[in-house]
Parts: sequence; C-alpha cells; structure tokens
Amino acid sequence: MNEIKQRVIQFFQKAGIVITDIEKDKIEVADFGLNDFENTGLTLLTYVNTQRCCAKEMVLFPNQTCPEHIHPPVCGQEGKEETFRCRWGRVYLFIEGEETSTRAVNPPRGEYTVFHQIELNPGDQYTLIPNTKHWFKAGDEGAVISEFSTKSRDESDIFTDKRIKR
Amino acid sequence: MNEIKQRVIQFFQKAGIVITDIEKDKIEVADFGLNDFENTGLTLLTYVNTQRCCAKEMVLFPNQTCPEHIHPPVCGQEGKEETFRCRWGRVYLFIEGEETSTRAVNPPRGEYTVFHQIELNPGDQYTLIPNTKHWFKAGDEGAVISEFSTKSRDESDIFTDKRIKR
Repeated sequence: MNEIKQRVIQFFQKAGIVITDIEKDKIEVADFGLNDFENTGLTLLTYVNTQRCCAKEMVLFPNQTCPEHIHPPVCGQEGKEETFRCRWGRVYLFIEGEETSTRAVNPPRGEYTVFHQIELNPGDQYTLIPNTKHWFKAGDEGAVISEFSTKSRDESDIFTDKRIKR
Repeated sequence: MNEIKQRVIQFFQKAGIVITDIEKDKIEVADFGLNDFENTGLTLLTYVNTQRCCAKEMVLFPNQTCPEHIHPPVCGQEGKEETFRCRWGRVYLFIEGEETSTRAVNPPRGEYTVFHQIELNPGDQYTLIPNTKHWFKAGDEGAVISEFSTKSRDESDIFTDKRIKR
C-alpha cells in the first residue's frame, strides 16, 4: 500500500502538483474489489467534498482503467456532474454515444458497454452530465487527472460489472 | 493586455499548469475598475462554470491584491462557497474573525474591514463559507491559486469599496 502511495506522489511531482504531508496520508487506493489493481484501479486525493461541490486529484498508472459506472440521483438530488481535466500523461474517456470504430485502447476483463472515445491530453477536459455511463483508461505513461464536481458520493456509484464494490 | 496574458502564462508554467491555446485566449484580466492593476487586480482562467459547480485557475502578480468582497445569496440560492488552493508562490487570505496583530502584509489603498490572516503556501487550501467578507494578497513572488466552488456569478459579488465594478 505504501509503495502505491509513493508511486502516486511521484506522479503528482511529474505533474507539478504539490501536496502536503497530511494529504500524503489521505491518498485513497481503490481496487474496486476485483483484486487486479494493475489493470482495474484508481488512486485519488480528495481536496474538498462539501454538500455542494468537490475537487479531487486522480492518478491512473500506465494502462490502468477506472471501470464503467454512472452517478445516479441521490436523495432527490440530481446525480453527480463532473469535469475531468488531464494534467499530465494521457487518458481515454469512454461515454455513451456512437462507438469509436478505431479506438486507441480496449477495456480490461469485465463488463463494458459504452465505447465513444474522448482522448484527453494535458490541458484537455470534458464535462460529464449526470447519469451518463463512463469509464476511463490511461495511456502507456499513466495520467494525472483533476476532477471538479458536485458532491461526491462514491458509495452510490452504480457499476456495470456487478462484482464491483467501492 | 497581451503582455499581461503572456505573464499569466509564464506563471502557469512555473506552477506546472498546462493550458491549451484556446484557453490562452480566454484568460480574463480584472482591474476592478480602479485603474491600478499592479496593486489591485486579478487574472484568471475559468475551466468550467455550470449551474452547479465551477473551477478556475487564478494568478496574482507579486504583492497584488484581489479586493474585499462577499458572495451573497442569488436567486434564492445560497451564496458561492469556494475553496482556494495555493499551487505556487504564497498568498495571504484575510477573512472575518480576530484581527491578526502581526499580519504579514497590508492592503492597498481602498476600503478593507477584515484582517484575520490565513497564509497559504503551495499545497495549502482554505474553504470559505458563503457570505463571508474576504480579500487576498500575493507575497513577493506572486501566487497561482486554484479555486473550486459552486456556480460563479462574479457580477453579483459585493465589494466593500463602492468604487469597484466587475
């Protein structure tokens, strides 16, 4: 676990992102219960998550995938709206819509149903409307991605692959 | 104007922040109508600003101040909530509360009424609850600051100094 966090800190350094020592301890490692972290996993640091808005820094290691999910409405409130901004490396975001016939990457083992590809390089960003299926996979070097969103309730996310638990 | 934007781009580079060519054109320069930009001014790039949330990158040049204001309730919605995260340089944030007797900086000419100092160095952040008076001033090197917030309505901000227009 400590080894993974050290690797995350190195990625933040590559992206020029400074975090405090207290924040280093708050880095979250998600393997989505699949026990295949190198292929399906995500690491993140939540800067702020109030009732109204949220900001995170996320790292995907090379060719690692955050698996397909949606953010449904919760407690009568619209689902989470989120903007992904690539800070370093490259990430391929897949959303609902026409399948990209020449997609650059394939998903890992598991259930994936949306294949409209959006390539994000440093400085590129994309805003997802609520309740849209999506998944994302890093390129060969990995990726550092900022997320700006409404309140995050990771425990409410619905994954296409029913084996997954957050 | 172009010279100011070039300077902003250099500050983003120092902070390791990559922006696209289209974004370079979208950098906003605010002098708050005071015509004293070196002392009272702010430059910013808005990444996203929807009905629900907003993210910006801001630059303060050395010893430059964003003047005192509040974000009041608008259209029956609570005022803007915002988190400032220092990415590079140093910024002194002043909010309501006990006056800091040994404050590091003084405001420029104009009306200032709150003097509780919070010093933010790279990796430090502070979340402001809505409807709180605040102003902020960069240290000697300037500062690059990320802002994560609810919807931004700059035109609704109420400045203490009534000469100010956004």
